[in-house]
Amino acid sequence: MVIEVDSAADPRIADFTRLRDTDLRKALEPEQGLFLAEGEKVIRRALATGHPLRSVLTTRKWLPSFADLPADAPVYLASDEVMENITGFQVHRGALASLHRLPLPAVPELLGRARRVLVLEDLVDHGNVGAIFRCAAALGVDAVVLAPRCADPLYRRAVKVSMGAVFAIPYARMPDWYGGLADLRLAGFQTLALTPDQHAPALDKVQFADRVALLLGSEGDGLSSHWLAEADQGVSIPMSPAAMALGVDSLNVVAAAAIACHALLR
Amino acid sequence: MVIEVDSAADPRIADFTRLRDTDLRKALEPEQGLFLAEGEKVIRRALATGHPLRSVLTTRKWLPSFADLPADAPVYLASDEVMENITGFQVHRGALASLHRLPLPAVPELLGRARRVLVLEDLVDHGNVGAIFRCAAALGVDAVVLAPRCADPLYRRAVKVSMGAVFAIPYARMPDWYGGLADLRLAGFQTLALTPDQHAPALDKVQFADRVALLLGSEGDGLSSHWLAEADQGVSIPMSPAAMALGVDSLNVVAAAAIACHALLR
Ligand SMILES: C[S@@+](CC[C@H](N)C(=O)[O-])C[C@H]1O[C@@H](n2cnc3c(N)ncnc32)[C@H](O)[C@@H]1O
Ligand SMILES: C[S@@+](CC[C@H](N)C(=O)[O-])C[C@H]1O[C@@H](n2cnc3c(N)ncnc32)[C@H](O)[C@@H]1O
Repeated sequence: MVIEVDSAADPRIADFTRLRDTDLRKALEPEQGLFLAEGEKVIRRALATGHPLRSVLTTRKWLPSFADLPADAPVYLASDEVMENITGFQVHRGALASLHRLPLPAVPELLGRARRVLVLEDLVDHGNVGAIFRCAAALGVDAVVLAPRCADPLYRRAVKVSMGAVFAIPYARMPDWYGGLADLRLAGFQTLALTPDQHAPALDKVQFADRVALLLGSEGDGLSSHWLAEADQGVSIPMSPAAMALGVDSLNVVAAAAIACHALLR
Repeated sequence: MVIEVDSAADPRIADFTRLRDTDLRKALEPEQGLFLAEGEKVIRRALATGHPLRSVLTTRKWLPSFADLPADAPVYLASDEVMENITGFQVHRGALASLHRLPLPAVPELLGRARRVLVLEDLVDHGNVGAIFRCAAALGVDAVVLAPRCADPLYRRAVKVSMGAVFAIPYARMPDWYGGLADLRLAGFQTLALTPDQHAPALDKVQFADRVALLLGSEGDGLSSHWLAEADQGVSIPMSPAAMALGVDSLNVVAAAAIACHALLR
């Protein structure tokens, strides 16, 4: 059902306009259970993984790509100018979709089917979370567990950077940070705390158990000392002493995740 | 020399205001040989690696951090409001510096002292370039060679994401893309083209020579077919077939760089 809109103020496209402001988006998304996906490819991945569509906003050029949507799905058609106006920047991939979230599984349910998982503590950067999901999916990780305060994988930038991997890989959010690792232990996971601390055993020397959970910490402070203490052991990726002397004393969390996921496959 | 400024329009702080607009910044920086560094730590790394300072812009809170600068270096002091106004967003780390670029070495000169190098083809994302420099520095890469069109490591976002690693690791820009790999071959480097193509030999099976250059391609199209053909061999990081079926068919270039640099250390 194609509906032309000629103004960014049209209330029918409020999903896209209201969500422009970061704070509003943060507040509204989880509450109303919505998220936005950008670009035909990513939108299709969201649909293919069962996320109910609310509406699509696109331009004439991209309209044919959405010809096969169910007849009752509203596809709002805007001019390039209105589109830019609405999104606040050029939408290179020419389409935005508003979709409903799916209920997340509980952690024990998620772990039931998994052998290799990532556990993200308080990551704040949505781009990093998205990039880690992409890595995790590409490198055969089965699931991701998020601490209560970890950034939302369905935030627009995370969805985009993940290239849709946030739909490909199941995840859950632990209800409680302090005791959050208990479910992993109960399910028989070896918990490895990734830390730049070069006194921790090197990744390539570690004996992996059958079920492994890799814990990753925030961009600024790293893993909390509580989780470092709770984990079965710390694990480090060796870094160049010369770089450390120059003040490069840790890897970006995406780089650390990539190296560790790759090592898990050996 | 502390100088109070009370308006973003003050011409003495034009280095910071003029450069706000992306296009202007792109045009002005290389021409005038300037770049901006953000945050005390990164500014100090830029200074420690010999980049001549033009000026610092900061707020009262951060002023004491710059007390030890040479007496003739202008330190512009602005209110929080003016600072936000100027930078267009909150400057969390409270200071910006404008510095002169240093002349880059020629590629053969750069390679003379290196054993492990990264070669970046047409990467467009400054954040990715910065993150790769951070990885490279942390994982003991000696130098980075940039294709003519690769994004600038001294662009503000690259400097920031690198956490100053763009100063820690020497780099050069090849004058010519088409014949750009010749200098590497002349210097006796094994050239390995990193590609998601899963028919290419797996990274962990590759025999590294004494001098190794890892070639990384752009975020969208990957390495050009010309460079893929020119390189000694293609190399791939194995990915999960399940993920590839779901459309996650490559790693983010930072993740690929991290895994490959780590493998080089073995
Ligand atoms: C930017 S680092 C945090 C740095 C923080 N200053 C610290 O000491 O942990 C973010 C996360 O990436 C992972 N990480 C970074 N460098 C690492 C390394 N060399 N070895 C293992 N994990 C690393 C850790 O999980 C860390 O919590
Ligand atoms: C996002 S990928 C480019 C994808 C592009 N469609 C292609 O086929 O090359 C960016 C760069 O990261 C590196 N890369 C990504 N995944 C890789 C993998 N699985 N193995 C080796 N290199 C990879 C390559 O250098 C590639 O050029």
